[in-house]
Amino acid sequence: MSKMSENGMVSRAKVLTIDTMNPTVKKVEYAVRGPIVQRAVELERELSEGMKKPFAEVIKANIGDAHAMGQQPITFFRQVLALCSYPELLNDSTFPEDAKSRAHRILQSCGGNSMGSYSASQGIDSVRQDVARYIERRDGGVPCDPDDIYLTTGASDGIVTMLKLLVCGEGAARTGVMISIPQYPLYSAALAELGAVQINYYLNEETCWSLDIGELQRALDEARQYCNPRALCIINPGNPTGQVQSRECIEDVIRFAAKERLFLMADEVYQDNVYAEGCQFHSFKKVLFEMGPEYSNTVELASFHSTSKCYMGECGFRGGYMEIINMDDEVKAQLTKLVSVRLCPPVPGQALMDLVVNPPQPGEPSYDNFIKERTATLSALAQKAKLTEQVLNTVQGISCNPVQGAMYSFPRITIPEKAIKEATDKGQQPDMFYCMKMLEETGICLVPGSGFGQKDGTYHFRMTILPPNDKLQILLNKVKEFHQRFTQQYS
Amino acid sequence: MSKMSENGMVSRAKVLTIDTMNPTVKKVEYAVRGPIVQRAVELERELSEGMKKPFAEVIKANIGDAHAMGQQPITFFRQVLALCSYPELLNDSTFPEDAKSRAHRILQSCGGNSMGSYSASQGIDSVRQDVARYIERRDGGVPCDPDDIYLTTGASDGIVTMLKLLVCGEGAARTGVMISIPQYPLYSAALAELGAVQINYYLNEETCWSLDIGELQRALDEARQYCNPRALCIINPGNPTGQVQSRECIEDVIRFAAKERLFLMADEVYQDNVYAEGCQFHSFKKVLFEMGPEYSNTVELASFHSTSKCYMGECGFRGGYMEIINMDDEVKAQLTKLVSVRLCPPVPGQALMDLVVNPPQPGEPSYDNFIKERTATLSALAQKAKLTEQVLNTVQGISCNPVQGAMYSFPRITIPEKAIKEATDKGQQPDMFYCMKMLEETGICLVPGSGFGQKDGTYHFRMTILPPNDKLQILLNKVKEFHQRFTQQYS
Repeated sequence: MSKMSENGMVSRAKVLTIDTMNPTVKKVEYAVRGPIVQRAVELERELSEGMKKPFAEVIKANIGDAHAMGQQPITFFRQVLALCSYPELLNDSTFPEDAKSRAHRILQSCGGNSMGSYSASQGIDSVRQDVARYIERRDGGVPCDPDDIYLTTGASDGIVTMLKLLVCGEGAARTGVMISIPQYPLYSAALAELGAVQINYYLNEETCWSLDIGELQRALDEARQYCNPRALCIINPGNPTGQVQSRECIEDVIRFAAKERLFLMADEVYQDNVYAEGCQFHSFKKVLFEMGPEYSNTVELASFHSTSKCYMGECGFRGGYMEIINMDDEVKAQLTKLVSVRLCPPVPGQALMDLVVNPPQPGEPSYDNFIKERTATLSALAQKAKLTEQVLNTVQGISCNPVQGAMYSFPRITIPEKAIKEATDKGQQPDMFYCMKMLEETGICLVPGSGFGQKDGTYHFRMTILPPNDKLQILLNKVKEFHQRFTQQYS
Repeated sequence: MSKMSENGMVSRAKVLTIDTMNPTVKKVEYAVRGPIVQRAVELERELSEGMKKPFAEVIKANIGDAHAMGQQPITFFRQVLALCSYPELLNDSTFPEDAKSRAHRILQSCGGNSMGSYSASQGIDSVRQDVARYIERRDGGVPCDPDDIYLTTGASDGIVTMLKLLVCGEGAARTGVMISIPQYPLYSAALAELGAVQINYYLNEETCWSLDIGELQRALDEARQYCNPRALCIINPGNPTGQVQSRECIEDVIRFAAKERLFLMADEVYQDNVYAEGCQFHSFKKVLFEMGPEYSNTVELASFHSTSKCYMGECGFRGGYMEIINMDDEVKAQLTKLVSVRLCPPVPGQALMDLVVNPPQPGEPSYDNFIKERTATLSALAQKAKLTEQVLNTVQGISCNPVQGAMYSFPRITIPEKAIKEATDKGQQPDMFYCMKMLEETGICLVPGSGFGQKDGTYHFRMTILPPNDKLQILLNKVKEFHQRFTQQYS
């Protein structure tokens, strides 16, 4: 157990080593913050220390982090948060009355009128009521019960919690969960950690990353031979693929879930991020209820939202909610118990979620400015979605579907055989090799498609559309030049 | 799978039922927010609806939630948070300069100068540097590397993450984790969820809840017959038991961990909450390093701190950090990867943690007021600790150890045989029966000792010392009267 080393010191083998740690944790991968991003951080440090590089700055287009890319917060939201943080400001005449009344209402719902108190584990009552009213407005009057709302620490927390409830069984009875490929790697990471079986269904790149029921059926039938498929996850608008699902497709998915007895998980954090003409966001909840009681009384659904995306982009506050439909009462009690162990989601994030679902109304002093700010952000995103698609599609060897929604493009790239061989010799995925080389040569940080999953033999990268217009233009040109150089080099 | 019900509607069996959900989640228990608290919330609602009760208000002494009990936030902390939330206020001349410079520094460390950006998953660099300097000051110059600091979503998040890394093996090779009894139920809940083996070591109530190495050895030796003990958790100052460990005891624990190859987890969230004369907080880190390289180079230690307790009591912000000593480099890389999946801890909580470790300094404009507020809170807590012990010890059938630190008393109560029988007939723990009855009759919400663990045949409750002085006095008198009435009724 312990031995004297040469210098006379006692050395003990560590208790916790790579061989004796939790094996499921080792299987977790999360490309959005993987080796490329670690290298980008190193490069930033090297630049700041005066080291010479072929670029002046690192541009991070790896993660949907709007404020980091210069997007400004919504003034009203931040005014209310300041008032809630330091209620002395309620006496300050420079703050608008609607911000004050909103802050007052939030503080009244906090123990001791302080955001420093724990809230109920499910979230502050009045916030859950506001979320329910928001959902009812959004879904054209479909009723929503505040008891079905759980506030969360970002959407990720809600998704992991729901998956945790669903996992059971061993061997061929082990829970399987269907996820789209390409996927947002939170799903694969959570499933690996929970030891659940990941069932891949492929989105159809040729038809703008659409979801095909035949492909769902294929994936399910194959999976039934080695696990117990119990849940189906959908991301709409799509991450990393940017598609927006049609109402018809959502109906098909719901029918499929009902027929095959699958718990539906709808990741709808990009619900305001719809840019393409003719596209519209339809919530799973709304479609489910409009399909009539045969579905609305039976299909189990959890849907997720967050403060991190849309027009607000407030990732750092870790706010979010989930709505749970048709969940068994005993399971719901277990869910409530489970979330109580973590005490409560961060209260500033809950306050922010409240503002998102209950923004300034017509006639209130902050309304005009709120609408102006929101519209400006969403229009800019729509323009950048278009620009990204257009520029990338001018490059031979890159083909990019329209960015209908969300915040990403996921173009397909042609990688020459010689480059594939060099990558393989190095033990790297070819698109990781490509992105790493781009980072070293241009300072642009993208995520390789292999981090999200893709059809064998195809290669992609994910790029956010968030940099400000001028920077995005530079970025796209650099990508273009890099791709041409890379293709030439390995031809 | 589906059938027509009498009204002609299709009814499907649910996908997710109590029988098909994750069995480890079902095993989770968390008494601090358990049935007593749920009933307390119901009673509050009933009171607000005008229902007649034998009391005018519910007093919640079940949870260490200082602001909910009327404790005021530290002005400086909230000023900085308001400035960070709404940086326009940096132009407001009513804010002190030190608050502004602190806010400026925090914002400069945020992407796009906004708390709405994701931070690094390990936490904001400058905050981790401030934490490291705080630890060095606290520990009399023992060095601290910011790379060993991970910011967390409250201490709970850090503790669960560390336990997650440690769990592996099956059957008799399954990881066992030693926890004190009584314990804070986060530990048992996390171990149940992870499917790890809980190894109980008993604190000695007769000697003020002291920790005895002989008892550690007994617990360990027994556990080795059925599991693989790998970690030892200590809470100092103690929750729920309020003891403060002597330096000697900490040395013994470290020697024991070294000898038996156990990973040490030190929960030190109450490090500023020490009241009893002659008691002093000693961090495990400091003691470890002062024991010399034989220990400081080998013993693996994770220690946890939080913004939720001490003099600040900012629970709602979910801020915290952990320091990791002597962790294997490969495991550390896995830890960094694991925390990246959840993106980052809430940034307002990180900002608050920064203020806690870097408060106003002598000569700065906010210094005097900060010291005044901090001292007032800690003195009041010390007085209430004393008052609680004194009043409870006047009651025949209640005996209470001194509350040396933390925020709780954990008195032992005598429950008459007749009451034990009535509880057992109802399938309730006798102290749950006692606390539920107290709640119904007096409106006082305590947590039964069985929620924390206790020696067989002994009964306790946990009561926070947080209510304001006048309310605490009323509460203690009501407890006294209730206990006397209860004892008489069942004698």
